[in-house]
Amino acid sequence: MDTARREKAGKQAARILRLIPVCMGLIKPGTDLSEAIRLGIKNNGLSLRDGDIIAVASKLVSTAEGRIVRLGDVTPSRRAYEMGALYKMEPRLVEIVLREADQVLGGLPEVLLTLKNGILTANAGVDVSNTPPGFASLWPVNPDGSADEIREKLSDEADIAVIIVDSRVTPLRLGTIGLALATSGISPTLDLRGSTDIYGKPLRYTWHGVADDLASAAHYLMGEADEGIPAVIVRGANMRIPLKLNDESPKLSPDKCLYMSAIRNNAMDTAAGLNG
Amino acid sequence: MDTARREKAGKQAARILRLIPVCMGLIKPGTDLSEAIRLGIKNNGLSLRDGDIIAVASKLVSTAEGRIVRLGDVTPSRRAYEMGALYKMEPRLVEIVLREADQVLGGLPEVLLTLKNGILTANAGVDVSNTPPGFASLWPVNPDGSADEIREKLSDEADIAVIIVDSRVTPLRLGTIGLALATSGISPTLDLRGSTDIYGKPLRYTWHGVADDLASAAHYLMGEADEGIPAVIVRGANMRIPLKLNDESPKLSPDKCLYMSAIRNNAMDTAAGLNG
Repeated sequence: MDTARREKAGKQAARILRLIPVCMGLIKPGTDLSEAIRLGIKNNGLSLRDGDIIAVASKLVSTAEGRIVRLGDVTPSRRAYEMGALYKMEPRLVEIVLREADQVLGGLPEVLLTLKNGILTANAGVDVSNTPPGFASLWPVNPDGSADEIREKLSDEADIAVIIVDSRVTPLRLGTIGLALATSGISPTLDLRGSTDIYGKPLRYTWHGVADDLASAAHYLMGEADEGIPAVIVRGANMRIPLKLNDESPKLSPDKCLYMSAIRNNAMDTAAGLNG
Repeated sequence: MDTARREKAGKQAARILRLIPVCMGLIKPGTDLSEAIRLGIKNNGLSLRDGDIIAVASKLVSTAEGRIVRLGDVTPSRRAYEMGALYKMEPRLVEIVLREADQVLGGLPEVLLTLKNGILTANAGVDVSNTPPGFASLWPVNPDGSADEIREKLSDEADIAVIIVDSRVTPLRLGTIGLALATSGISPTLDLRGSTDIYGKPLRYTWHGVADDLASAAHYLMGEADEGIPAVIVRGANMRIPLKLNDESPKLSPDKCLYMSAIRNNAMDTAAGLNG
């Protein structure tokens, strides 16, 4: 390999994005999650570096924070029974979803579409997979705060950022992908308005959902079943850390959301008219 | 490091997911894209390995296949003028979107929500960023066929798979993420029904959108502006290649889509009633 080629390859290698799985023991309510992550990283023969982003499964955060509910302890309301019958769901689970959801927008057999903390999600984040038998897990009360706490506690190791990763479904697509439920230390989105494309033309309204992209990358490894990878080190993202400003949020208001324009206006009928 | 630790670290390293950017020169209509990718990989000091997945930006495929339209050549219809006025869009661009879209479902200033080839997307995949000035790019006519062709042509290098990556927006989220517009050589989704979680409980209806997750991982590096990374080698995904069966599709029919349940039934009002 000649010098120029080697240099190029070296530069290339520096830009490789690495997703490194971190395995760890079962997390229980009350576990110090940051210490568990620290130990997991060490036991996996790894160490943190400046610029690393730790992606943590939201279920891990929920479990450690005791945000799990024993289904047997729940008394369903009349509405939970009604919706349970309508959507073929266990009324106790519906009851938990109704308590967690800010709004229910729709549903299919066994699942409800809900709005929770400004995020559209299935069952308001309530889930019974990878939770102890007989329990449902809820989203952390304050995901941003949880992300901040993990980052702060691990900041003695390196200047890191944190993404809390949940699963989501998207319109007309089969299969779950990753969602950046919260971030700390990085900007969840990159504002590209005013930057230029490869032809030098300015971009007018493009934002890049960098945290959601990285959450999906980590979610690929975390999986949905018994992969046993509840945390992933994202290395080489080349984001300046810390980047997050207080007023930044990846949440869109409904009036700026393309999909809500269709949900709100029931625009399918309108569009069908326009199409006809 | 003791032997056990070293073994663990070795096993760990084997499971690292690597996203390796591939830079290449500008692609023009008529360029042999597979050869351009082959050359780009070589010029970046890289080579393909069995199990690698090549993520290719859909715009690259479109441009090579001549799926770009000179805006000046387009004569808008009356409907394009009407919708252009309604959504503050250039009527020529609206005209191209109307020709490409199977259905228009909604809109916001400067963008339409459309259904195209069973995929919900902004402006039916029509885009003016990273296209030559004065041109709009369209989706490839047959993205699955394009993915198959790239895979076949590069199969003399190694047993690889291909994902064609586009950008998409998702409900109530700011910023674009990746979409697996087409795949070849891997299954776009992983059916986890019947597999078990970490507590041994069976999963009843979970599918993992593995190709969309990986498309987002690649999209993180590809970006939206002048990053100049139109292809990414995904290494370490550990998918058996080839996996894709003919009847597999990541597309959901509207009656199985949680979001469409809200769009179709205008369920927000219903749900508001239920909530009240």
